[in-house]
Amino acid sequence: MKEKLTKIKLVGFDVDGVLTNGEIIYTDKGDEMKIFNAKDGQGISLLNKQGFITAIITARQSPIVDKRAADLGIKEVYQGVKNKFEVIKLLMEKYNIGLSEIAYVGDDLPDICVLERVGLACCPADAVDEVKEVCCFISGREGGKGVARQVADMLLAAARAIPVDFKLMPCYFIAGFFTQFFFANI
Amino acid sequence: MKEKLTKIKLVGFDVDGVLTNGEIIYTDKGDEMKIFNAKDGQGISLLNKQGFITAIITARQSPIVDKRAADLGIKEVYQGVKNKFEVIKLLMEKYNIGLSEIAYVGDDLPDICVLERVGLACCPADAVDEVKEVCCFISGREGGKGVARQVADMLLAAARAIPVDFKLMPCYFIAGFFTQFFFANI
Amino acid sequence: MKEKLTKIKLVGFDVDGVLTNGEIIYTDKGDEMKIFNAKDGQGISLLNKQGFITAIITARQSPIVDKRAADLGIKEVYQGVKNKFEVIKLLMEKYNIGLSEIAYVGDDLPDICVLERVGLACCPADAVDEVKEVCCFISGREGGKGVARQVADMLLAAARAIPVDFKLMPCYFIAGFFTQFFFANI
Amino acid sequence: MKEKLTKIKLVGFDVDGVLTNGEIIYTDKGDEMKIFNAKDGQGISLLNKQGFITAIITARQSPIVDKRAADLGIKEVYQGVKNKFEVIKLLMEKYNIGLSEIAYVGDDLPDICVLERVGLACCPADAVDEVKEVCCFISGREGGKGVARQVADMLLAAARAIPVDFKLMPCYFIAGFFTQFFFANI
Repeated sequence: MKEKLTKIKLVGFDVDGVLTNGEIIYTDKGDEMKIFNAKDGQGISLLNKQGFITAIITARQSPIVDKRAADLGIKEVYQGVKNKFEVIKLLMEKYNIGLSEIAYVGDDLPDICVLERVGLACCPADAVDEVKEVCCFISGREGGKGVARQVADMLLAAARAIPVDFKLMPCYFIAGFFTQFFFANI
Repeated sequence: MKEKLTKIKLVGFDVDGVLTNGEIIYTDKGDEMKIFNAKDGQGISLLNKQGFITAIITARQSPIVDKRAADLGIKEVYQGVKNKFEVIKLLMEKYNIGLSEIAYVGDDLPDICVLERVGLACCPADAVDEVKEVCCFISGREGGKGVARQVADMLLAAARAIPVDFKLMPCYFIAGFFTQFFFANI
Repeated sequence: MKEKLTKIKLVGFDVDGVLTNGEIIYTDKGDEMKIFNAKDGQGISLLNKQGFITAIITARQSPIVDKRAADLGIKEVYQGVKNKFEVIKLLMEKYNIGLSEIAYVGDDLPDICVLERVGLACCPADAVDEVKEVCCFISGREGGKGVARQVADMLLAAARAIPVDFKLMPCYFIAGFFTQFFFANI
Repeated sequence: MKEKLTKIKLVGFDVDGVLTNGEIIYTDKGDEMKIFNAKDGQGISLLNKQGFITAIITARQSPIVDKRAADLGIKEVYQGVKNKFEVIKLLMEKYNIGLSEIAYVGDDLPDICVLERVGLACCPADAVDEVKEVCCFISGREGGKGVARQVADMLLAAARAIPVDFKLMPCYFIAGFFTQFFFANI
């Protein structure tokens, strides 16, 4: 795992269900809202300061995502994406990096085409089963509840050669069973 | 159960407490908001792609519901409904289908007149007791937290002749007792 | 308890922390929002249909509360109230009823002056300790998560002479201990 | 601990993750929203009535914070703060108080420069690990879920020379382990 982490140069995030808890909020005026997480924001800001390339790749489209990305200094924002792996290929060319240098956090079926190929495939605790099957890091935190911060902390710790103490990382009690950090395919 | 699932051609959903977690949100300008779930949306989209007829039947009235239905490709939307079974009768005529070919997901008293008659009666984990008593599938998930996705996954798996592994489906720990998938009257 | 329940003619509710989960939501335009619960609404509507007088008594002030009260047919709405017991006295005169005929649901310090006097003093599971000490019914449900529905169901069952099976009523697992229905001073 | 509590004259609060649960809410019109807690508000109002100086120190900037501060009678509001300890120094001069007379509640990295110096360093149950390490009071409650009320209750009880019964204070079950009141460095 350590080796996987130290190779990463680019970190991609899905939005709904990853940077948010999957809530789609509408007003009767036709407006939309999204709920992000301040601690996730702190983690992504630190990734940017440390020199990581951060990216958002989402199938939906909203000006809210552009605003949040600007807040946090995320320069690569792709919305309304049909095939997310096409964006990954584009980013690989643009930054001249390989699949093993990419981490991605996704939670639902359209993320699988990316997750089954990148170097570090991550998902929140409440991802769908099909996604969990292809991920090497299943967080104990749900979407919008700190999963992005946890991935950021892991990468920053690896970059600084500080051993990550996985036992100390908080692990949420959800769904009637104790969700533990799960490292498969490593 | 398998037999019940493979017969279904139309899936109806209540809104408040089923596609949302039952929150009624008002602003002091008199506007209303609703919070839907991205994973539920993915499930309903897949139902539509697979050829199922999907419907919304709700006692309340809001333009938000029309917007969400349009997002997901739900063509049958009935709002401000006093007697929900009248809508079911209308849909049976329109599509020339019988009660055993209809699934419905509801959570409160006005849904009972439908649930006690249709082929597949489903409710979220936090439905009222009177509703749970007439349902054959009580989800382990609460309203707005993936119950629609779970019903969709069941129907899609049955349609594809893939056996559903109910033991693997997540089951939430709520209300001080372990809510399990509960199949009565089957 | 049964005797207490059958006497009740008027049911009063605090708003923040009782009909909502205590969230105070502001937008940067200076607007406010409140989140109510559809199942609570169903319960209060049934109380009104059954002939109970329902009332809202709140220290804060918002047009949202008037809108929600109108939705549910709550005719007695008192906002911006400094001393809540003054309103109770006013209602006792208006409807010619005694303290033992009044139920009230409150969650924080300003509710105590009412709760320590009325016939049926109720609070949500997440009321402050000082309130819990003066209540005879401490719900297993939190504010905005069905406490009003539970009180309504109890009163309606008593009115219909149906024995309430308290063991069957859902009881939430909160705050690291199993919150049970607690009947003191009965 | 008692001694620490009785010395406090000024109580400072971070906003996101302390007075709110860390949610950053945007609309597609570019507006922002924040969700505060009614019980926290009651606690801060009582602190003001009892003569405590209350302050808000936050790195972000929003008119919502000014509105909430005005609601509760918080006079010292500092937004867009880069170095939070600079504000603490300013307040020490303005009110002629020392570090041991200041309590502060924070949850993330930018709060550490204050927390490691003030007399009473407090954090919510869901603060990041680095913050928990420098706090002498780690609440059992999460940000926006009553942590400010708990700190207020502790200070008010100490000011009134009423012994605080810590065992009676609610303690939330979070993150897969039982978060207890934790008093280090006392």
